[in-house]
Amino acid sequence: MRPGFSKAAGSTLESFIMGLVDVAARPGMISFATGLPDNDLFDVEGLKRAADEVLTEDPCGALQYDSSAGYIPLRKRIAERCRRVYGFDATYEDVFMTSGSQVCFDLVSRMMLDPGDAMVVENPGYLGAIQSFSAYSPRFIGADIGPQGVDTCQLASAVSDGAKLFYSIPDHQNPSGYSYSESTRREVADIISGSGCLLLEDDAYGELGYAGRVGRTIKSMAVEDTVMTGSFSKTISPGMRVGWMIVPEWMREQTSRSLEACCLQSATFCQRIIDRFMQDRDYDAYLDGLRRGYAAKKRVFLDAMEDNLPDTVRWNDPDGGMFIWLRTPDGTDATRLFERLIEEGLVVMPGRPFHVRGGENTVRLNFATPSEEGIREGMRILGRVCRELY
Amino acid sequence: MRPGFSKAAGSTLESFIMGLVDVAARPGMISFATGLPDNDLFDVEGLKRAADEVLTEDPCGALQYDSSAGYIPLRKRIAERCRRVYGFDATYEDVFMTSGSQVCFDLVSRMMLDPGDAMVVENPGYLGAIQSFSAYSPRFIGADIGPQGVDTCQLASAVSDGAKLFYSIPDHQNPSGYSYSESTRREVADIISGSGCLLLEDDAYGELGYAGRVGRTIKSMAVEDTVMTGSFSKTISPGMRVGWMIVPEWMREQTSRSLEACCLQSATFCQRIIDRFMQDRDYDAYLDGLRRGYAAKKRVFLDAMEDNLPDTVRWNDPDGGMFIWLRTPDGTDATRLFERLIEEGLVVMPGRPFHVRGGENTVRLNFATPSEEGIREGMRILGRVCRELY
Repeated sequence: MRPGFSKAAGSTLESFIMGLVDVAARPGMISFATGLPDNDLFDVEGLKRAADEVLTEDPCGALQYDSSAGYIPLRKRIAERCRRVYGFDATYEDVFMTSGSQVCFDLVSRMMLDPGDAMVVENPGYLGAIQSFSAYSPRFIGADIGPQGVDTCQLASAVSDGAKLFYSIPDHQNPSGYSYSESTRREVADIISGSGCLLLEDDAYGELGYAGRVGRTIKSMAVEDTVMTGSFSKTISPGMRVGWMIVPEWMREQTSRSLEACCLQSATFCQRIIDRFMQDRDYDAYLDGLRRGYAAKKRVFLDAMEDNLPDTVRWNDPDGGMFIWLRTPDGTDATRLFERLIEEGLVVMPGRPFHVRGGENTVRLNFATPSEEGIREGMRILGRVCRELY
Repeated sequence: MRPGFSKAAGSTLESFIMGLVDVAARPGMISFATGLPDNDLFDVEGLKRAADEVLTEDPCGALQYDSSAGYIPLRKRIAERCRRVYGFDATYEDVFMTSGSQVCFDLVSRMMLDPGDAMVVENPGYLGAIQSFSAYSPRFIGADIGPQGVDTCQLASAVSDGAKLFYSIPDHQNPSGYSYSESTRREVADIISGSGCLLLEDDAYGELGYAGRVGRTIKSMAVEDTVMTGSFSKTISPGMRVGWMIVPEWMREQTSRSLEACCLQSATFCQRIIDRFMQDRDYDAYLDGLRRGYAAKKRVFLDAMEDNLPDTVRWNDPDGGMFIWLRTPDGTDATRLFERLIEEGLVVMPGRPFHVRGGENTVRLNFATPSEEGIREGMRILGRVCRELY
């Protein structure tokens, strides 16, 4: 007799994402599919210098265990950023370092969700996070998202029906590229505050607004009811796996205990390199450079879309982040497009898996990963197959 | 109204361990308490060179996302070690890289345990792992451990009563320092095989047998019913957080899905540094040097014990690992000793929290972390307080 898997194991959703990383790595394949940052924008020399400094100045500190919540100077740096950039007060004791923000999704779900509890996700919403939540067997309620952000009527209705958690990316959302308007943010804060529903505000792309941040953080308006997460994966390096979460004071002790149980601590070495890198460089100026790089890349991508795609498909022009949201004609299913494109050597991400309902005619395109040559070649393929199908 | 925590959050045990890391870090405090490797045995120059090479030769590979299961060359290296050192065949597809072995404990429990399921832990057993399991609300059954390993009658009884999981450290166990005899290993393999109970074999200290490995891995005798975990925390650097698990083929797909859900992937950068370090150095010769270093440290520690401690306390002489198991007189409670020692500037780890039952008169001592001077000074304190109390 073989050991049987748990119920939770059975409820964990499959994810397209990592499978597509492998498909995209095939020789000759052009990828608009994944959420990989632009290789050309890594500051390799800066990170090499930071790694060397960290291993020269306090090697044992960098290689040894550290306290579970993480490296205090880096936590202080993030707390300082809360006050200066994110618009609310926090101390380093509110900041917990994790091995990437996926760990934050897992931690928040394990702390808040019992099987069958309702939680609200954006429709469409970020698939990787939804997969993480699914391991805790919640009942997912989708709240539609559009160019002004989440539908606050749908959100309010779910919260008043007892939803325990709302997962949101207010800035340059994955997959849609949409950002919440100021009034949507305010309404979300009002709905959440004191409701018994926790907001998990994912700031994955917040630092990648091409003209600066697009709006106030919702946590700044509902600080006691919000966990804010972020990571250095999109700004410095995903291969370092350094993420963080800022929790209200009433969650500190439980977060500490649950973090220790699930992973003990995240890598001291990588945390120190990130901290050193931020100290060595003017981090705000560094981010400006990054924003200019991605804005230029988006321009190339949009120009190639305009040059190649037929009128039968539509798309948006996001003001930050890494994604463009493509719509094929109403009533069509983009799965067919996805399959034909792979045959032609281009991978895109179908929008359907990001949805609780609908979304058959949507596709997520990442303009950050491909080279400019890849963009032009990939767009010729996309245009040809769109004209063939629509 | 504040959001309420989940039932799982409430069941997660507190752990002494990380709290003691903070106490031990107080200025002037000598620590025999934690499981930190010896700072003097880190190969700082070797790791600095490996980090530099990794960032020079393929910087984007090192800084970018990788597939969820981890860096293939390192997984192949571990699979090769399975054949050559651990005594069973594995391919790299059986090997999953994690951010330290704590993540493996979490992953295996989430895959196997529903609330209320019975699982067997060694009595005493490793507290950090037990904390990790506790988040899944199992019913813990303790199987006593002694100088020959686990009590196989108690194990067999629990397994026949339907236990789903058995967590075991057969080599230089934490906290006791005991290793399983060859016949105990054989019996465990027989009990587990085909029983419906999965063995989680933690090889944390297996590479630190001073005269080489002390016995065959139990996985080599029950390959389909065992998940083996290990990490580079005790051999290369805990601050890198690079652990791994080797699963039977029938668990591969579920492991892949659950790993992706809980943490996406572990740090590409650290995995590549470890891989490069193992390639640059003769890793077996490196391990021999480490073993000699720890054996010498243990000798200094045991000599200081013999010179300072009264006859009323007893201890063992482990053949590997980092821990010595101290017993105060029957009927005494070592909590008092622990408290008095902190007043005198020495931290030790009481044995009681490692136990499902009993263990009041036990203490875990780590000889790896303190300096030789710290050992001599700490042992004078320990001797003085033991004579005062017993």
